[in-house]
Amino acid sequence: MNTDTTVPLTRIVLASRPQGEPTADNFRIEQAPLPSPGEGQVLLRNLYLSLDPYMRGRMNAGRSYARPVEIGEVMEGGTVSEVIASRCDGLQPGDVVLAHGGWQTHAIAEGRTLTRKLDAGIAPLTTALGVHGMPGFTAYAGLHEIGKPQPGETVVVAAASGPVGATVGQIARLHGARAVGIAGGEAKRAYVRDELGFDAALDHRAPDFADQLRTACPNGIDVYFENVGGAVFDAVLPLLNDFARIPVCGLVAHYNDRALPPGPDRLPMLMSQILTRHLTVRGFIQRDFISLYPQFLREMGGWLGEGKIKYREDIVEGLENAPAALIGLLKGRNFGKVVVKL
Amino acid sequence: MNTDTTVPLTRIVLASRPQGEPTADNFRIEQAPLPSPGEGQVLLRNLYLSLDPYMRGRMNAGRSYARPVEIGEVMEGGTVSEVIASRCDGLQPGDVVLAHGGWQTHAIAEGRTLTRKLDAGIAPLTTALGVHGMPGFTAYAGLHEIGKPQPGETVVVAAASGPVGATVGQIARLHGARAVGIAGGEAKRAYVRDELGFDAALDHRAPDFADQLRTACPNGIDVYFENVGGAVFDAVLPLLNDFARIPVCGLVAHYNDRALPPGPDRLPMLMSQILTRHLTVRGFIQRDFISLYPQFLREMGGWLGEGKIKYREDIVEGLENAPAALIGLLKGRNFGKVVVKL
Repeated sequence: MNTDTTVPLTRIVLASRPQGEPTADNFRIEQAPLPSPGEGQVLLRNLYLSLDPYMRGRMNAGRSYARPVEIGEVMEGGTVSEVIASRCDGLQPGDVVLAHGGWQTHAIAEGRTLTRKLDAGIAPLTTALGVHGMPGFTAYAGLHEIGKPQPGETVVVAAASGPVGATVGQIARLHGARAVGIAGGEAKRAYVRDELGFDAALDHRAPDFADQLRTACPNGIDVYFENVGGAVFDAVLPLLNDFARIPVCGLVAHYNDRALPPGPDRLPMLMSQILTRHLTVRGFIQRDFISLYPQFLREMGGWLGEGKIKYREDIVEGLENAPAALIGLLKGRNFGKVVVKL
Repeated sequence: MNTDTTVPLTRIVLASRPQGEPTADNFRIEQAPLPSPGEGQVLLRNLYLSLDPYMRGRMNAGRSYARPVEIGEVMEGGTVSEVIASRCDGLQPGDVVLAHGGWQTHAIAEGRTLTRKLDAGIAPLTTALGVHGMPGFTAYAGLHEIGKPQPGETVVVAAASGPVGATVGQIARLHGARAVGIAGGEAKRAYVRDELGFDAALDHRAPDFADQLRTACPNGIDVYFENVGGAVFDAVLPLLNDFARIPVCGLVAHYNDRALPPGPDRLPMLMSQILTRHLTVRGFIQRDFISLYPQFLREMGGWLGEGKIKYREDIVEGLENAPAALIGLLKGRNFGKVVVKL
């Protein structure tokens, strides 16, 4: 454990805003002196950094869930971090916590915000960034509060080998629903079906994908957990049953859009479908349902302990590789939850 | 009271399916012998026929809420009807009931479906087709189950002089919310503001309508009760607050659409707004919330008795004028709830 506070901090800042797909030029790596914690604060050494699709939204100037990262600011991100200096009661050097440490080797945090201590003896630390953390909770909360899968219903989710999609399908099956997963490429497709146990798994790159989806959903679709948008949504829409629910937690296919696509304008058609099929379409982020978080930690912890929920991680070594890893993630090049090991 | 069962029945049937806007040619008036009630049935004389925007959907072959009216079949519709012959215990000639008697002078009904007897001494019979019936319940249920207006929030509704819109705004105000109504023309606009007591009322035909709406909603829009679609929705969308709710019960602006409008395609934009603003968009018809109906009858009955909810009716004399009245209704030519007096 490196507790020498004279070494500099390394960080990655937003150098410029992307036009369409982000490129390496949008990021800049910097060094800075290590800061000292003030009263009530701690100094953290970040051990693992989570990379997630929402980060693309933070790189834009426009309104999204949250204020954007400003040019020159450290990129945001969840971390598993070790306390290396503390001026906060209840936090000691050596404590490992879930933090929002960002794309950097060290961070200052308000001690009162660090409410979750982690123990590698109970679960791998990285799960707090994935299946037992924000992406897992996104799946759990979206199904619990919006999707509400019932026994025998059909639940469809894309990016099904990723941390949200994989968890959505497995929770749906624990509720007695049928899970149909969509992934990019044969390796991911096979993993979703054979390892995660989805009832069906499809490759959205197949030329007859829409037909395959129809065949895989003979009783229509009751819950579509929307995390990608684009062509997958277009294939899902005609298959939705009356009273279908669509939790919308991401639209990664559109994050790089620079203009509206050409017509015709399908907005009135979507509203008509919502009306005549009694659809519920609801956007959310997991924070909207934060009161459910303790229940999630308990229930998901149980499922993980019993082996009822599986997960896969895609570990990237070194902070300097984070930009390329995020760019790849937005193109679906990762296979499982992307975590940068610092 | 005419109980002579030898007079023929007059009815209006669907003669052909409309291409775009319905025309008089799509309807045909016919006479037929009076039917006799079978066991458990009653013969009804229809006193009042309700005309409602949903009827446009029934004229199409395509899927909507319910199966379409077939060519040659009597047009559907809710009625206030008098029992003139009964083979059902508990229903006597002279009883006045809420029925689904259709566009005709007489109808056969299963007695068990006639669960609501009406008493002109308690409330005008026609209210059972409007504010104290299906349109009023649409407003009540959509707000109760989806819109959930909170004190101080802003609720926007179009067709605000019509039976759904007028009721939405007045109920919103009873919940302590601010009601902004949209109507077509100065007479309706003044009625919505001055008679119904909305906080603001706008004419959607004004060239600067979108600017007027922005001015009328300085704190944004929390609930948009969607019953029209089209240009009103386009003006509402940029003003929606985070966590806004959009109950969708009608899209009258689109009922005559024959093709998708030209581009660009705003479907991905709508989904992005749903995501980043945490919107809830939910299609419904009042039947979805039927368990709430007794509570509605009780509560709305109280409000009407206390003068807390006002309404306006647009009475059309004679069944033969129903086609023109429906065509006018779809163009916003009515002023209040359209009821045909037979």
